[in-house]
Amino acid sequence: MANKTITAPLGFQVGSASCGLKSDNALDIAVLTCDHPATTAGVLTTNKVFAAPVALCRERLVGGRAQALVVNSGNANACTGPAGLSDAKNMAARLARSLDIQPEKVLVCSTGVIGHRLPMTKVSAGIDAAIEDLSNSARSGRDFAKAIMTTDRSEKMAYRQIKLGRSTVRIAGVAKGAGMIAPNMATMLSFITTDAAISSSLLSRLFKRSVDTSFNAITVDNHMSTNDTAIIMASGLAGNATLRIKTSASKFAQALDDLCLDLALQMVSQCEGATKRMDVTIRGARSLADARTAAFAIANSPLVKCALFGGDPNWGRIVSIVGASGIDCRQERIDCKIGSVPILRKGKPLAADLGRLAKLMAAKVVEFTVDLHLGQAQFRCYGCDLTYDYVRINAEYHT
Amino acid sequence: MANKTITAPLGFQVGSASCGLKSDNALDIAVLTCDHPATTAGVLTTNKVFAAPVALCRERLVGGRAQALVVNSGNANACTGPAGLSDAKNMAARLARSLDIQPEKVLVCSTGVIGHRLPMTKVSAGIDAAIEDLSNSARSGRDFAKAIMTTDRSEKMAYRQIKLGRSTVRIAGVAKGAGMIAPNMATMLSFITTDAAISSSLLSRLFKRSVDTSFNAITVDNHMSTNDTAIIMASGLAGNATLRIKTSASKFAQALDDLCLDLALQMVSQCEGATKRMDVTIRGARSLADARTAAFAIANSPLVKCALFGGDPNWGRIVSIVGASGIDCRQERIDCKIGSVPILRKGKPLAADLGRLAKLMAAKVVEFTVDLHLGQAQFRCYGCDLTYDYVRINAEYHT
Repeated sequence: MANKTITAPLGFQVGSASCGLKSDNALDIAVLTCDHPATTAGVLTTNKVFAAPVALCRERLVGGRAQALVVNSGNANACTGPAGLSDAKNMAARLARSLDIQPEKVLVCSTGVIGHRLPMTKVSAGIDAAIEDLSNSARSGRDFAKAIMTTDRSEKMAYRQIKLGRSTVRIAGVAKGAGMIAPNMATMLSFITTDAAISSSLLSRLFKRSVDTSFNAITVDNHMSTNDTAIIMASGLAGNATLRIKTSASKFAQALDDLCLDLALQMVSQCEGATKRMDVTIRGARSLADARTAAFAIANSPLVKCALFGGDPNWGRIVSIVGASGIDCRQERIDCKIGSVPILRKGKPLAADLGRLAKLMAAKVVEFTVDLHLGQAQFRCYGCDLTYDYVRINAEYHT
Repeated sequence: MANKTITAPLGFQVGSASCGLKSDNALDIAVLTCDHPATTAGVLTTNKVFAAPVALCRERLVGGRAQALVVNSGNANACTGPAGLSDAKNMAARLARSLDIQPEKVLVCSTGVIGHRLPMTKVSAGIDAAIEDLSNSARSGRDFAKAIMTTDRSEKMAYRQIKLGRSTVRIAGVAKGAGMIAPNMATMLSFITTDAAISSSLLSRLFKRSVDTSFNAITVDNHMSTNDTAIIMASGLAGNATLRIKTSASKFAQALDDLCLDLALQMVSQCEGATKRMDVTIRGARSLADARTAAFAIANSPLVKCALFGGDPNWGRIVSIVGASGIDCRQERIDCKIGSVPILRKGKPLAADLGRLAKLMAAKVVEFTVDLHLGQAQFRCYGCDLTYDYVRINAEYHT
C-alpha cells in the first residue's frame, strides 16, 4: 500500500521514541525533519496563558522557514516560567546540533499536564533516540501520529494528493486532541507536510483560512488550551510551478481545506467520551461573528449536548440558546431544522414527524440548522455529545 | 413556629392548585395577591427568545405597581406566538375579574416546556381553584413554593426580618430553578414579598443590585432561559418611615442582598445532579466586566466542573481558562488559591500540601480565588459540579 502518512510528501523524515514521559513505554517524543529549510506557516493558541514552546514557535515562525521540529506528549511545559522556556530552547538546540542545522530553524511543541518542568535528562535521551529512528517509511509516519497522542483513542491522519500541471503534489497531516478542544486552537496539535512549491505568504494565508473552518470550527468543551499549535511545512520538491498569491491556487487550497477538516472531524468524533457528532449551521446572520457566536453557543451548550446524547429533538433548547447568545436576532423570524426536517418556522413549532426526527437524532452525525433571516452571513461548527464517559474521564483525571 | 414564608410580610395572600399541567396531581398553578397595589420591581430574562408572560411583565412592570400575580409550572408559554400572548393576558384577566382589580395590575409567569400552547381550560380552572385557596397561612406559603417547581429537588424559601426604627420589616422569598441556570436570569423564577414602605425608584434600584450579585451570579449550565423572572412586591404595611433614594436604606439593602443570595445558593446547591458548589472569585481585574467574564468562564467550564466532581485540585485547568477567556491578563502575574491554600504565585506552581488540597476539594463548597494583579475590580460567582446525574437528567428528558 502506498505511504499516506506525513512522510509521503517528498523531503520529510520522522522518528519517534519513548522516553518515559508517558507510562508503559508508550511513544512520547518525536522529531520531524526536512531535507532543507521548508516554507512553513503556523497557527498558535491565542490563550494569554501560553506554554513555553508556543512562545518559542511564535518567534521562530515569523521568518516563514523551518527545517525540523520536536514534539513531546505527557508534559505541556506550560506555567513553567523562564526555566520552561530555557528547556524548550534546549530541546531545539539538541536537535539542531545532531542534524547540523540552525537552532532558529527548529520548532518545539509540547502537550500534556500543566505546571511541571520537563525531565530534561529523559527528554534529551528521547530526542537522540528519535533521531536514530528517522526515516521516510509509513511505519515512521504512523508512529509519529501515535507519539503525539495524550487521551486520544487512536491516531489521527489524513492524506490528499492532487495534480498541478504534470506534477503530483502530496499533502499529509497528523493531529492529536480529545478534550480541551474549542475554537481558537484548543488543546490540539496538528502537523502537516506537503511537497508543494508555494510562496511563504500564500501558504500562510491559505493555512489560516483552512484552520478557521476546521480546527477553529470544532469544540468539545469550549476550552482553548495553553499549547495549541498547527504547523504546515512545504518542501517544494513536487516540481510544480511555485504557487503564489497572484496565481490560482484553488486546487491546492481546496485539498488543504479538505485535509484540515478531515483531521478536525476525526478529533470531534473520537473525543473524550463522545458517541455522536453535531454539525451546527447558522444561516442568515447579520455578520460572520454573530453566526460563529450562535453556532458555538449551541455546540457548547451542556443541555444540547445531553439532548444529542439522549437522542431528544429538543429544538426548544436550541432556539433559546440562540436568543441568549447575545447576537442580533428576532424570535418571530427564526427557522430551525434537524437534518432536512423543519421543526420551527418563524419562531413557531411545526407539527413534525416524531418518528422521523427520532431516527435523525439516533444517527452518528446530527445536523442542526438555524436560519435567522436577518442577513447573509453563515458559519458551520462541529461538536459532540456530553456523555457519562466524558464525566468519568474528566472527573477521574488527576493532577 | 412563626410564619417565615412569603405570606409572613403583612398584606399578602397566596393560593395554589393542581390543574393537570404536571403529572400525578402535583401543584402547578399559584396566585399571589396584595391587599392593595404594591410597589413592585422586577428583573426579566434578556434572552431575545422570550416567553409570552415575559413580554407581558415587561410592559406591566413599567409603572412600578402590581396587585397580584399568577404563575404556572409545567408549560413555559414560550415560542407560542401571538396566541401565547393572548393566553397570558387571559390568565391575568381571569384573576383580575375574580379579585375585582385592574387587569394591568396583574403579572403572569410561566415555567416548563417550550413550544406548547397552554391548555387554557385547565389553566382557567386552576386559577379559580388557587383563588379559593388564598390565605396568609404558612401552609399556603410553602405550597406556593412547591407549585412553581419543575425539576427542583425541593422548594426554596428564605426569610429575613429587620428593625427599621420601631417597625419590624419582613422580607420573604421563594425561588425555583434547577437547570438552564446562567447569568442574566436563567430558567429561574423568584418572588419576593416585603411589607417595607419603600419608594418605587429605590426598590427598583436595590433589587437590581441584589439580583446582580445573587441570581445573576450563579450558573449551572450557562443557559439563560426564555422565562426567567424575579419580582419583588412591597406592601408598605410595616409602618416604617418610607425608604427613599435620599434616605439611608443600607439595613434593608443588606437584608435583601442576603435573602437573594440565600435563594440563589439554594438553587446552585440543589440543581440538577449537583453534589458540590464552587465559589469562584476573581480579584485584581482591570474591570468588573473582565472579573465577571473570567469567573463565569471558570464556573461554566466542563473541565473544572468535572474536576470539582472528582475532587482534583486541577489549577492548570483554572488558569488556562482565565487565559482563554479573552480578558486582560498576564500569566506571570496570576496568583491562584484553593480555599486559603496558595497553589500558583506569579504564574508558577507552588509546592502545595496535597493532603490538605484533597481535603479542601472533598468539601461540599470549594473556593477558587484568582488574583490577576492588574487592577481593583472583583466579582464572585457560584457554580456546581458536572456529574453523571446531570447527564442522566438532561439526556433522558424528552421533548
